[in-house]
Amino acid sequence: MSPREDAVLSTMQDVPLLISRILTHGSTIHGTSQVTTWTSEDEPHRRSFAEIGARAAQLAHALREDLGVTGDERVATLAWNNAEHVEAYFAIPSMGAVLHTLNLRLPPEQLAWIVNHAADRVIIANGSLLPLLAPLLPHLKPVEHVVVTGPGDRSLLAGATVRVHEYEDLIAGKPTSYDWPELDERQAAAMCYTSGTTGDPKGVVYSHRSIYLHSMQVNMAQSMGLTDEDTSLVVVPQFHVNAWGLPHATFMTGVNMLMPDRFLQPAPLAAMIESERPTHAAAVPTIWQGLLAELTANPRDVSSLGQVTIGGSACPPSLMEAFDKLGMRVCHAWGMTETSPLGTIARPPAGVVGTEEEFAYRLTQGRFPAGVEGRLTGPGGERLPWDGESAGELEVRGPWIAGAYYNGPGAEPLRPADKFSEDGWLKTGDVGTISADGYLTLTDRAKDVIKSGGEWISSVELENALMSHPDVAEAAVVAVPDDKWGERPLATVVLKEGSTATFETLRAFLADEGHIAKWQLPERWTVIAAVPKTSVGKFDKKVLRRQYAQGELDVTSLG
Amino acid sequence: MSPREDAVLSTMQDVPLLISRILTHGSTIHGTSQVTTWTSEDEPHRRSFAEIGARAAQLAHALREDLGVTGDERVATLAWNNAEHVEAYFAIPSMGAVLHTLNLRLPPEQLAWIVNHAADRVIIANGSLLPLLAPLLPHLKPVEHVVVTGPGDRSLLAGATVRVHEYEDLIAGKPTSYDWPELDERQAAAMCYTSGTTGDPKGVVYSHRSIYLHSMQVNMAQSMGLTDEDTSLVVVPQFHVNAWGLPHATFMTGVNMLMPDRFLQPAPLAAMIESERPTHAAAVPTIWQGLLAELTANPRDVSSLGQVTIGGSACPPSLMEAFDKLGMRVCHAWGMTETSPLGTIARPPAGVVGTEEEFAYRLTQGRFPAGVEGRLTGPGGERLPWDGESAGELEVRGPWIAGAYYNGPGAEPLRPADKFSEDGWLKTGDVGTISADGYLTLTDRAKDVIKSGGEWISSVELENALMSHPDVAEAAVVAVPDDKWGERPLATVVLKEGSTATFETLRAFLADEGHIAKWQLPERWTVIAAVPKTSVGKFDKKVLRRQYAQGELDVTSLG
Repeated sequence: MSPREDAVLSTMQDVPLLISRILTHGSTIHGTSQVTTWTSEDEPHRRSFAEIGARAAQLAHALREDLGVTGDERVATLAWNNAEHVEAYFAIPSMGAVLHTLNLRLPPEQLAWIVNHAADRVIIANGSLLPLLAPLLPHLKPVEHVVVTGPGDRSLLAGATVRVHEYEDLIAGKPTSYDWPELDERQAAAMCYTSGTTGDPKGVVYSHRSIYLHSMQVNMAQSMGLTDEDTSLVVVPQFHVNAWGLPHATFMTGVNMLMPDRFLQPAPLAAMIESERPTHAAAVPTIWQGLLAELTANPRDVSSLGQVTIGGSACPPSLMEAFDKLGMRVCHAWGMTETSPLGTIARPPAGVVGTEEEFAYRLTQGRFPAGVEGRLTGPGGERLPWDGESAGELEVRGPWIAGAYYNGPGAEPLRPADKFSEDGWLKTGDVGTISADGYLTLTDRAKDVIKSGGEWISSVELENALMSHPDVAEAAVVAVPDDKWGERPLATVVLKEGSTATFETLRAFLADEGHIAKWQLPERWTVIAAVPKTSVGKFDKKVLRRQYAQGELDVTSLG
Repeated sequence: MSPREDAVLSTMQDVPLLISRILTHGSTIHGTSQVTTWTSEDEPHRRSFAEIGARAAQLAHALREDLGVTGDERVATLAWNNAEHVEAYFAIPSMGAVLHTLNLRLPPEQLAWIVNHAADRVIIANGSLLPLLAPLLPHLKPVEHVVVTGPGDRSLLAGATVRVHEYEDLIAGKPTSYDWPELDERQAAAMCYTSGTTGDPKGVVYSHRSIYLHSMQVNMAQSMGLTDEDTSLVVVPQFHVNAWGLPHATFMTGVNMLMPDRFLQPAPLAAMIESERPTHAAAVPTIWQGLLAELTANPRDVSSLGQVTIGGSACPPSLMEAFDKLGMRVCHAWGMTETSPLGTIARPPAGVVGTEEEFAYRLTQGRFPAGVEGRLTGPGGERLPWDGESAGELEVRGPWIAGAYYNGPGAEPLRPADKFSEDGWLKTGDVGTISADGYLTLTDRAKDVIKSGGEWISSVELENALMSHPDVAEAAVVAVPDDKWGERPLATVVLKEGSTATFETLRAFLADEGHIAKWQLPERWTVIAAVPKTSVGKFDKKVLRRQYAQGELDVTSLG
């Protein structure tokens, strides 16, 4: 807006929200806070925020002066969570370049596709990951430099045509301060590709502004609310949505970081919790499942962990209860690569803590923070009320929510219609309800929901109800075409040995014990030997839908 | 910056940071949180955030449709802290207009100057303040409408030429929602004039962006860190730097507000703390001094108040200790109208709470939050180190720090050289030191500091040391011209009856007991009957400097 002649202009300073400001703040005001990296040695490695700040400046000098990184070039990292990765997190965006974190768990061909798509010319890699990187290098066309940190067999790179640098040699002797440029806060700062089950991976490009605002949100008392008295065990990988924003957020408030590097197995995690006494931890449920089993087998003192943030997928109630008993209070959060990721966080509302209602609130995905707006869109595109019952696809808007995907250097961003609404909101692909007091409960993925006569039936709800039957080992529910209703649910069940359950008794069980509404009860049933799974162990419903379409399933129709 | 051809564009949504978003968030997600306003009746008045949201929409409709408020017109408030003032706080900026809070404690002629300078066409006034407003009205040229809220004698406005409206009648029947416009976040949202001791009052114009970011900062765990479990007693007036940003910050996280309206005397404050049990309070030291005396005379249960934010001027150590004993933990903060106001906050660093060092940290002005950068500038314009010893004028930069003053509608903002550095930082006019770990200690006002041979001597330090002598009732130290050193300190002392102290013994006391460096000891001494005071009770050093210049003081020179 251009001001009118009599307009009242704000007289505030125009100071952009930059990652370099977070770095400078953390390394001066909180210079004594620490990044502790677990090692295979007796003692973990400790580095102060002041040292991180000095070394980030050295890294920026090396990237610019020795490797010629200019403008908004992408610099990739292939690394675990450790101090050097934190240095890269701050150095690369602060100098104006773009940090591209590579997900080391992706299939090699996807990794190669991503490096080529982002046009990464430099990769900073942990030595321990060279066995993954070395065979990939011939397929990484734009890569000219590999900078290696930490232990690992360098001889693996012997035949590579790229230039190989030792990180410590590269930064040694460089100036420990850098005149960070004043950038536009909307400039790209970091990028992360998300790989769906179909199509090419999609790049999300975070701006300085989005990361800065997200960091402030993470630090709000109503969110994670950590202070410099805290130590956060950052298990969620730095190559996964910026480790949920924790490296940036912690530098903003001096929260100490405990970094597990490659030691993500339950035993070392339990050991580092006992010896380093973090007050907070963040990870996906599978990590906590493993840790719980380890702690049951080999008890440790984990009482320091007052707050455990769980995201990525829903935390099973049994796991939440088990951690509560150990004094580790789980707080659910929901987000995705496209949401930076803090989308909701499940702190119970005022007055509920300590009451019977509390646990139900903690099992929801939580409330939107002030910077995130949410709405539910029904099967016909209509807006649904926040009544805790109307199920729709969740759409979100906010300054740290993606509005498009990266389409390669110089190309216009991609805005596929199934991912972004016409008015710019992100379609999350998650289906659920929102209660009158703003608590989100996700019930299904949009692609798995059954669209029956203009209403939605949650496949997950039906599956959970079925799997609570004592005779059912596994169950998957998928949508199949129906002449009258458009789609109807098909129940595929894996029965336990010796089961005497019939489809009729299972259906009655759903209605009586599962409290499933009558119109949602499946008519089509089949028994299968096992539910097909994806490479990461999720139900692969595509396979079931295809088997049904090709007539490969023996389906019984009930009344 | 215009993107290059191969530039990586951020793919984040471009969502402006607007006050209407804070309002919508608070009145939906935190719709059951409450604004409680103290009254002279048996019960305080309670209004939910949802009701505030609905009524703010009604007020915006009334202002636009009935009073014709358009664009960025200023709408003034002359009001205590109460629910209607909160409604105005949100309605006016959300609709795109500018909230102008009038300081009801200013001399009438200054108030009139300010209303005319801001070109306020509408004033929303509390009925209880009509005795102040009515006689002013003939001098308020631009004012066409007065909207009256709450109890008060309307007949006082009988002869006024403006149109008078009842607030409740005006908003009654209006729609309870409003299609808030998408504004530029840098647009003016609110303004507040600061009145120095010299010159005209100066307007600071806050933007939507600055208020939004400041609110996030206030809510960070490292700052005030409140949640929806909290209730904040907002004693600091809404006409004083947006009540330190609390109405905006509380709507962002659902913190309940307890508003004292006009009942700011110690007895009702003690009563409302006991009955409403706020967990947080914010006010200047004089309010707490009065409350402490009241609690000593009439003990009340004030144990709910776990956190008390004190700003505006330094909190005397004795007051901090007295409140500690009552279980009310004082947290020092520093700021000014130009800093929104959160500039520093005195949370001790990690590991210090519970140790002997803690109290010393709490007496400092505190540390800068991530959004505020600070630097010290010495007498010759040089940057001074953070060593806890080098004293300089504090300069600050940040997205909620003023970079200029308002100069009337349509005019370019004012950037006086004594208030803003060439590179745009705010010169605070405060002199102090910053420790290596970032804690600010203010020692003097820049205009009162003694510039002696390229070094600064704090007048306040000398005064405090002098006043700790048992024979000294009061003491003021001012700079006087000196041929050799430029300036030297003149000590003016008020001796207690029967004192036998000589200037020589006082000077020796300063060196021995006061630990004042030898080169800082005053040579010039005089006894006065009383230190001249300003209308608000502060030492009026202008008068002393003039008396010295005119030879009216009987000055003795030592050695």
